[in-house]
This record gives sequence, C-alpha cells and structure tokens, in this order.
Amino acid sequence: MKNINICIAGLGTVGSNVILSLNENNDYIKSKTNLSFNILGVSAKNKFKKRICDIKNFTWCENPLDLLNIKDCNILIELIGEEKGLSFDLVKQALEKKIHVVTANKALLAMNGSELFKIAEHNNVLLLYEAAVAGGIPIIKSIKNSIYLDKINKISGILNGTTNFILTEMEKFNLDFQEVLKRAQSKGYAEADPTNDIEGIDSAHKLTLLSTLCFGSEINFKNNKFSGIGNIHIEDIHNAKKLGCRIKLISESQIIEGKIINVTEPRLIKIENPLANVDGVINAINVETKHLQSLFYAGEGAGGKATASAIISDLFEISNNSKSLSLGYKISELISFQSFDLMEKISPYYLRIVSKDLTGVLSKITSFLNESGISIETILQIPENQNNNNSIPIIIVTHDTKKSSLMIALEKIEKQEFILEKIVLINMDKNY
Amino acid sequence: MKNINICIAGLGTVGSNVILSLNENNDYIKSKTNLSFNILGVSAKNKFKKRICDIKNFTWCENPLDLLNIKDCNILIELIGEEKGLSFDLVKQALEKKIHVVTANKALLAMNGSELFKIAEHNNVLLLYEAAVAGGIPIIKSIKNSIYLDKINKISGILNGTTNFILTEMEKFNLDFQEVLKRAQSKGYAEADPTNDIEGIDSAHKLTLLSTLCFGSEINFKNNKFSGIGNIHIEDIHNAKKLGCRIKLISESQIIEGKIINVTEPRLIKIENPLANVDGVINAINVETKHLQSLFYAGEGAGGKATASAIISDLFEISNNSKSLSLGYKISELISFQSFDLMEKISPYYLRIVSKDLTGVLSKITSFLNESGISIETILQIPENQNNNNSIPIIIVTHDTKKSSLMIALEKIEKQEFILEKIVLINMDKNY
Repeated sequence: MKNINICIAGLGTVGSNVILSLNENNDYIKSKTNLSFNILGVSAKNKFKKRICDIKNFTWCENPLDLLNIKDCNILIELIGEEKGLSFDLVKQALEKKIHVVTANKALLAMNGSELFKIAEHNNVLLLYEAAVAGGIPIIKSIKNSIYLDKINKISGILNGTTNFILTEMEKFNLDFQEVLKRAQSKGYAEADPTNDIEGIDSAHKLTLLSTLCFGSEINFKNNKFSGIGNIHIEDIHNAKKLGCRIKLISESQIIEGKIINVTEPRLIKIENPLANVDGVINAINVETKHLQSLFYAGEGAGGKATASAIISDLFEISNNSKSLSLGYKISELISFQSFDLMEKISPYYLRIVSKDLTGVLSKITSFLNESGISIETILQIPENQNNNNSIPIIIVTHDTKKSSLMIALEKIEKQEFILEKIVLINMDKNY
Repeated sequence: MKNINICIAGLGTVGSNVILSLNENNDYIKSKTNLSFNILGVSAKNKFKKRICDIKNFTWCENPLDLLNIKDCNILIELIGEEKGLSFDLVKQALEKKIHVVTANKALLAMNGSELFKIAEHNNVLLLYEAAVAGGIPIIKSIKNSIYLDKINKISGILNGTTNFILTEMEKFNLDFQEVLKRAQSKGYAEADPTNDIEGIDSAHKLTLLSTLCFGSEINFKNNKFSGIGNIHIEDIHNAKKLGCRIKLISESQIIEGKIINVTEPRLIKIENPLANVDGVINAINVETKHLQSLFYAGEGAGGKATASAIISDLFEISNNSKSLSLGYKISELISFQSFDLMEKISPYYLRIVSKDLTGVLSKITSFLNESGISIETILQIPENQNNNNSIPIIIVTHDTKKSSLMIALEKIEKQEFILEKIVLINMDKNY
C-alpha cells in the first residue's frame, strides 16, 4: 500500500466534498489500487463553520502556508480561489518545497500560471487542474492521454454554467437578461458580483488553459478576445430560433495562419450542432482533430461533487503516473503565438437593424452591404408586431464575410438618419 | 529518443490509416514526446492491393504469426478481426512472447478475452482496445484515468453506428427497416451479412468490455441480453415522436441488487436526453457516477481515421505508462456477477396493440392491465388514418412496471379474439 498524504487549503463546497469523498470511498480506492489517500492538514477561513464533513482528525492551520510545514505532505489541494495573493503564494511555496499541487483555480493559472508551471517542472512535481476547466468533464486528461498524438484543429465549448443558465432561462421564460440574472443570483447560480461570468472572463481563463494543452501555446491570457452576454436581447434569442439556431456563449481556440485565436463570444449555433442543445448549468466541449471530425463532451461544469471528482482524478494521476507533464508540453517547448486579428476572421454574421418604417430602407441597407462586398444569406421576415408604429427591426444574416468589411458597411449604415438604434451584431457559428 | 517497434497484422482501412498517420505525424510525435514509432513488419491477405499507404519499407509476412519473429518488436497491432481463429492465435502468441498487443477486435475480446488478458497480466504486458469500443470516443481511457476512483452507477450508450444509421434514415425518409437496410448496404454502412449489427451482437460485445471496466465484472458475454432493431416498424418510430421520444438501440450496464444487468435493446428515449439526438453513424455514451449525474460523450464510432486515432492513443499508453492495467483491475479481482433477471426489471413500456375496431375493446385491454397491477401513463390518440377499415392500433405507455407482470397481462390480451397481431412491446428509457 502506497500512502499519499494530502493537505487542503479552502473548505468550501468543493473542499468539503473532496474530504467526504475520500472518506466514503476509502475502501473502494484501496480495493482498486494500492493507494491510501490520507488527509493530514486543512485550512479555511472559519474553523467552526458547519460542514458536510468532519475535520477534527486533521491538523488545523489558521494560516494555509503552515500546511506546507506538515511533515510528509505529498500533495497540496488549493481551493482558496484567489487570482494571485494567498493562492499564488501558497502554490508557489508548495511547488518550491517539491509538493505536488492540485487546484480548481482557473484565474490563478490563466493569469499567473506561467511562473508556477516553471517551478513545478524545475522541481519535478506536478501542478494539475482538471477541476479548473469544465468541472466534471475530464477534458484535460482526454487531451493529455487520448488525443495527445493527434493534431487538434479546433476546440470550442460552453465553459461557463452561469451564462448558459441565464441564456437558457431567458429563452424558456421569455425574460430579459437583467430579470434572469436576478433569478440566477437568488438561486446561487450567479455571484453577487457576476462580472467574471457575465463578461466572458471566466470562460477566457479556462480557454487559456485549453489553448495551451491543445496547441502548446504559452499561457497568455492576453491572447483572449472576449465579450459577454450582457447585451443579448430576448428579441435576438427569438430571432435565432426563427433561423433554426440558439444563442450560446462559445469559447473557441484554434490556429489560423500560424496565429492563435482564442475567442469567447455569444454566437448563433445551428440547432443540429450538439452545443446548441446544452442547457442550464451544463458545460460542453467539442474537439476537432486531424483524425476526428467531432469529439463531443457534456457534463456538470461546477458543483461540489463534480469538482471533487475531477480533483480526485488528479490525485490519482499524481500517485500513479510519474511521466505525466502538467501542461502536456515541456515549458521550454511552449510557443509564443501571435494573436490572430479578429477583424480578419471570416464568418457569417447576424445583424439586427432597427430602422424607421419607411419605403426604400431595406434597399438602401442592402446596397451599403453590397458596396462592401457582403452578400446576404437571409433577411428575416419583418414581424407583424412592430416595436412601435414608427420602427421596424430588420434581421439580416450575411454569408461568410470578413469582419473588417462588415464594420465599414455598418458604420456607413449607422450614419443614415433612418437608423434608430446601434446595430446589433452577433457572430454566427462558422458551421452555420 | 525511445524507439517503439511495431508490427501490424491486417491492412484494411484501419491498418492503412494507422500507417499513414504514424508516417504523417512522425515529426509531430517526436517533437511532443521522446518517442519514435517504427513500423517493422506488416501482414495482410493481399500484398498488392491498392492502399492509401506505402508498405514497401516494411518486412512483409505472408503468415501474420511470422511477425512475432521479427527482432525487437514491442507492440503488435491486431486488425484481422476474427472472433477466434487466427486473431486469437496471433494475440495469444504475441502476449506469450511478452509483446504488447493493441486491437480493435471487440468480438475476440468479448468472446475469448479472458484467457488473453490473463496471459497479458502474467507476462506483464498490456492488451489494449480503445478502438474496440465506440471508435474515436476515448471512453476506455476516461474510465481508467479520469473516473477511475469514482463509483460508476450506470453506463449506457449507442455503440453501433450501423443500426443508428438505419433508425435515423427510417425516420428521415419514412421508410421501412428492410428498405433502409438495403440502402445502408449499398453505401457500405452495413455489411452483406448484417446479423451482428442488426441483432445487437456487436453492441453486446462492446458492452461486455465496458461492464468489466466499470464494475470489475469478469469478461462474460453470457451476461448480455440483446435484441435488435429488425422488428422496429416505421409506425413505432412515428408514435415515438408523438410521445416526445425517439427510438434508439441502447446498450446499458449497471449493477442492481448485486447482480449485473447488461442489456442491448431498442428503447424510446425522451428527446431531451442527449442520446435521443445522436444521429447517423455517430456513437454516444453516457456515464452516471456517484459524483457525476451525467457525463456524455459523442463521436465517430468507426471509420479508418477515428479508429486509427484510438489505436495510436493505445500505442502512447503502452509507451508512456507502465503502471496501467489493461482492464483497470487485476484479473484475480474481477467479480463473477450473477445476471439480473430482465423479467424483474421495473421500467415503463410502450405497447402497440392492433385490434379489431369494435366498441369496448379499449376498456377490456385496460382492465387486463389493471388486473396485473399495471397503470397506464398515456394512451395515444388513435390515428385518423387507420391501417384498414377493420383494425385500429392502440398505443399505450405504462407507468413503471415489472416486466414479468406485463408479460402475464399481454399473454391474456393476446388471447382475445379482437387482437389481430402480436403485440409490439418496446422498452422505454427509465428516465422517460
């Protein structure tokens, strides 16, 4: 029997579930492996908070840094969740002491991970993070173990449960963004300050790690372009439906012309695409490789149990496989890709143009688009119930077009006196 | 650089794609790992068949058993595909010579794998088979690496592309089974003798391996109950749609009351269940564990490239991870489960009863069901277009019921003189 000694910093839902799971599954794990996971020490803000697990048998440290002084600690689980600060100091010192680290902290790794992964490699220990991306979906290990020698062309997915929950509820109950956000906050699906989720920052953190794993890109959050769902109007969700689509916040990473493009943005996705049918807080990922047209995963992106499952899989990797590389690449082999200019990206686009209800408007709009070489795939029938007597919404789906050309045309159109609102522009999935 | 020497027996689509892929990705693999995969020898029925890959640099063996005499062969890839015979002899002799084996041959492993895995373990070599189950979906490695220390409650999926293609086309083009089968055969999606696919045998082979991985069950094909799609009528597909369902050939393994239940059967699946939306030759798998409510995979279940990708992932596992267990369990720890009696299974059922169009028929049928304690969830509105003037189809969905009780009631009903055809009984998914 091989003893693996663990310390845990942070005992919220996830930390408590890790303890509960290791206790409950102790015999199962021993019967299946030659491993015995022993929790030595724990640390959290409040020792006396009511928890689902019992912590009295573990050494309590007021200061999480003191966990690292506990004798024979093999693995530290970091669940404090700060982007730098204490989380960074703790992980750094653990790695310097040649203690393996498992974390669910995507912000820490995406923003400040480079230095940490270097220390880990230098000290021949692992810094693992299956729980940091898409919760219970084992995407990190799939990339590192299963499609590792295949060439990945593209990875895209729904990496944030909060925003997917909001989009799903907007459609289901025909509600505006702000109303649903309040509901999500009251249910605990959105935080009091929801900025990180709503604006796509959390998704971009996760995509940063995926792009490193898939393409060997240096960890560089600046490679990300992200926009959130705050501007998605219930009207656009209805229009998407009429076009056979749903709007999802999609994170996508690929290499185009030798440059990296990491983008998180709302998109119209065809209903036939499995990503379009992922509802509520579920996460999903689609990978396209040289050998696989599509490899699709869906599962719980958050929650105590699912996240604990991912953390325990990392404990297993550390205990079992000394040849594993934390990022799938040696640090020295990571590539400093240039960022692909999103303005150069070619894709179809959805436009919602609110105009005065005058004759000749549509022909003027289409001629501006035509002048910029943009051809139109669909003009959605103008609804019978107009916003008010003087305005009409015009919904246009373009064929593949370069965003820069489109922006020139839109600027011209917006200057016309019959245009009443800023034009709404939403990306359509390339496979539309 | 670590040299890994490979021999390949069988050069059909899959074998040729493995060679092509290793050649094309050679530099990529070397740059990412310290591995160099070298193909030493190959064997196939016809040396001179036109192939997508060049084989002139490899030692040619007329007899695949001669591959094992090639010096320094580390891994044999078996792609002959026989259930016993030459495939068995070759794999056995390879393992006896302490050569690792990678195979896509589910029939071989499900029917005759026990002996082979024993030899592999005894000789401390691996016998891997990622390609044997669900092609490009990395389900074997996910179970062995990612959810290995979680307790699996249930695994279910669509494991056969041919039958899923047929069911999809029946619905899409409103055609009967036999017609679509012919189309599938002409497109190469179904074999000249389609028995193994159509009757669920191929799915049951794959499920046998999954049930061992998930529950530590001894490899025992006899644990499987399987029925195919040959009796699925286009009418039932239409009725399923009216019930908000689609019919899929589902393979499912779980432990109930300490007994194993491995079943492959057509089922009505609610459209909200991702398995219901898997179309064409795609395979899909859903896993439920103690920690994960649902972990869903979908991808290509066959085809040269997808299968080659799975095979290469096995080459990587062998080259990289000496601690891996072929089945995830030591052979001595595998459990000889009793089979759960399907008659004891509780689930809702779909019935199509063709009766004479007489008053009082429905009340007689429902009272027979009632006598056996079976309650009815839905009676589908009898369609306006009747089969002919004298017969009506009555569609009934039951609540959860024990199959044995249902069979007693159906036997009584079938004896009634107003019943015109054998009653069609299709399982509904438990989550219906």
